[in-house]
Amino acid sequence: VDAARCVPVALGDRSYTVHIEPGCLRELGSVLARVVDAERAVVVTSERVGALYGAVVTESLARAGLGSSTIVVPDGDRAKSLAQLSDIFDRLVACGADRDTFLVAVGGGAVGDLAGLAAATYLRGVPWVQVPTTLLAQADASVGGKTAVNHPAGKNLIGAFHQPRLVWIDPRVLRTLPARELRSGMAEVVKSAVIWDPQMFAWLEVHAERVPALDTDAVAHALERAVAVKAEIVGRDEREGGIRALLNFGHTLGHAIEAASGFGEVLHGEAISLGMVFAARRSRRIGLPARDVDRIVSLLERLGLPVVLADTPAQWCAYRRALAHDKKRRDGLFWMVLLREIGRAELSPCTLDEMLEGRTAA
Amino acid sequence: VDAARCVPVALGDRSYTVHIEPGCLRELGSVLARVVDAERAVVVTSERVGALYGAVVTESLARAGLGSSTIVVPDGDRAKSLAQLSDIFDRLVACGADRDTFLVAVGGGAVGDLAGLAAATYLRGVPWVQVPTTLLAQADASVGGKTAVNHPAGKNLIGAFHQPRLVWIDPRVLRTLPARELRSGMAEVVKSAVIWDPQMFAWLEVHAERVPALDTDAVAHALERAVAVKAEIVGRDEREGGIRALLNFGHTLGHAIEAASGFGEVLHGEAISLGMVFAARRSRRIGLPARDVDRIVSLLERLGLPVVLADTPAQWCAYRRALAHDKKRRDGLFWMVLLREIGRAELSPCTLDEMLEGRTAA
Repeated sequence: VDAARCVPVALGDRSYTVHIEPGCLRELGSVLARVVDAERAVVVTSERVGALYGAVVTESLARAGLGSSTIVVPDGDRAKSLAQLSDIFDRLVACGADRDTFLVAVGGGAVGDLAGLAAATYLRGVPWVQVPTTLLAQADASVGGKTAVNHPAGKNLIGAFHQPRLVWIDPRVLRTLPARELRSGMAEVVKSAVIWDPQMFAWLEVHAERVPALDTDAVAHALERAVAVKAEIVGRDEREGGIRALLNFGHTLGHAIEAASGFGEVLHGEAISLGMVFAARRSRRIGLPARDVDRIVSLLERLGLPVVLADTPAQWCAYRRALAHDKKRRDGLFWMVLLREIGRAELSPCTLDEMLEGRTAA
Repeated sequence: VDAARCVPVALGDRSYTVHIEPGCLRELGSVLARVVDAERAVVVTSERVGALYGAVVTESLARAGLGSSTIVVPDGDRAKSLAQLSDIFDRLVACGADRDTFLVAVGGGAVGDLAGLAAATYLRGVPWVQVPTTLLAQADASVGGKTAVNHPAGKNLIGAFHQPRLVWIDPRVLRTLPARELRSGMAEVVKSAVIWDPQMFAWLEVHAERVPALDTDAVAHALERAVAVKAEIVGRDEREGGIRALLNFGHTLGHAIEAASGFGEVLHGEAISLGMVFAARRSRRIGLPARDVDRIVSLLERLGLPVVLADTPAQWCAYRRALAHDKKRRDGLFWMVLLREIGRAELSPCTLDEMLEGRTAA
């Protein structure tokens, strides 16, 4: 039985539900007609996703009596620019979008980040809904209300917190996702387990391969657990004043790896995998058992994720340059996420030199 | 005695104080060192205001041990574009602004709107402080957290709610404000009284001219009352779900007048004055006594504000076109603010045709 799984995100008057159900994409219109008090939708999607699922979405909206327009943006991170954002504003104006209009982001993390920032700032905020179509977006990016575009100087430098009214996840759309992107998405599933949920980590040690193989039950379970971890953390710390930063496990070096590779060369989850291995090894000094480091590395390895960092002086210089622009630095300190044990993470301040352990000259 | 007047804006963990004190500009640095937990300021100001007060501000910051950079934007509404916003992001990146940086908006309403939106979206939100230098910004625009830039299709179409940490008002800077802008600013002072504060309206009927004449006590009193009205309304309805819309008294037609004139030809307060006269006359039918309409018109007239609307078919066609783009419309209805009596306003839904009373063909 393909039962629906619902995870609540408790944020007072900004609370919403993450709905996970195979095949639910074609029911989107009828749920939106109930959830969002608005009459017209503007669908924001990417070229690739729009070609695959745009018609299913607009037909579902039409069946529910909701008019819609569609805005197609480039695939991947090319969508996340101020120029694309400006383009979306032009198109929203052109199709007469007013405060009774809501946005529907149908795509991966980049589409959600861009459409969410447009929703956060068009008319000082219109409602929006996330329909994530990659494993990475379903397991992580679509929940929590972070929206952003990139600046040439760094990823996600311009953005806002703007919670969606609903996150609508159809795991069946993962069938059209390239295998490498499925593997990449598993990195965020592993991250959720590592920082918060030791039972889930143990489950992954038995069943991990079933998720990228798209076993229906395994996918639903993995998504539900990853989303539940994120929902719990975001519910306690919406704007990343404290524990929400634990979700950045592996991300400080991970972002630097992405930046140093020029973005796109290395997928996000691949970079995060390398960042998690780095952070797990660093966690030895606060007590993470060597055996747990091995468990993390071998789980990532089994999932086909990279675990061996290019360890040349030139690479470390590139990481250092990228880290110097990290937006999470405060007072010159990084707050690195380290592990005491699997399922228990904490924030640890360190300087850039401490973080790189003298691998490059300062 | 030039005593400081402080008006609290009560918004839970986003609460802040509006501080009104002649000569307080040079004390800005020392108060910021206490109020904002950050080490570096980026001052955003306009060409004209920067030339007059930039040095006072940066010296005050330096005396308090706060480093600062300054970003100068064009005067007036030319500052309020996505291109200028993008330019601010570039300059924030260039000067290394991080989460320990706060923005200081020193200028009129346009500078506040632009700098506030930059603060709302840079790194998903950095703290900011408003130092308004026009009567309009001191009495109205600097309080309440609305930020925005314009789109070619309409004013303030792109924006966010982002409350400042402090509003620091030095009425002495009004000495360098052109007389026409002082008169324009009085329109928002009158509006506050008309919608909420009958005592203030009565005070204005006796003392109105003393404010644009820059009588110290009268200016401080007018600012304190106008800010208190706004703070009370915003405290009850931060995001304009209900009564905050009362602050738009005179603004629906007012914005259309500004748009029809191409912005800049007619000052904001002048357009609002005409809009208030229009709305006051419309309020007759819900019971506003004719005598109160006369009191409003004659107060505005005494202040040198325009009260006679260009009443030609061509003008009304232009207003109709502009109103068709109004972002406050919902389900095709405008929520016009009408008066039952001076000090008691209410929202009244009406169609575009009802609003224009058949003055142009549909």
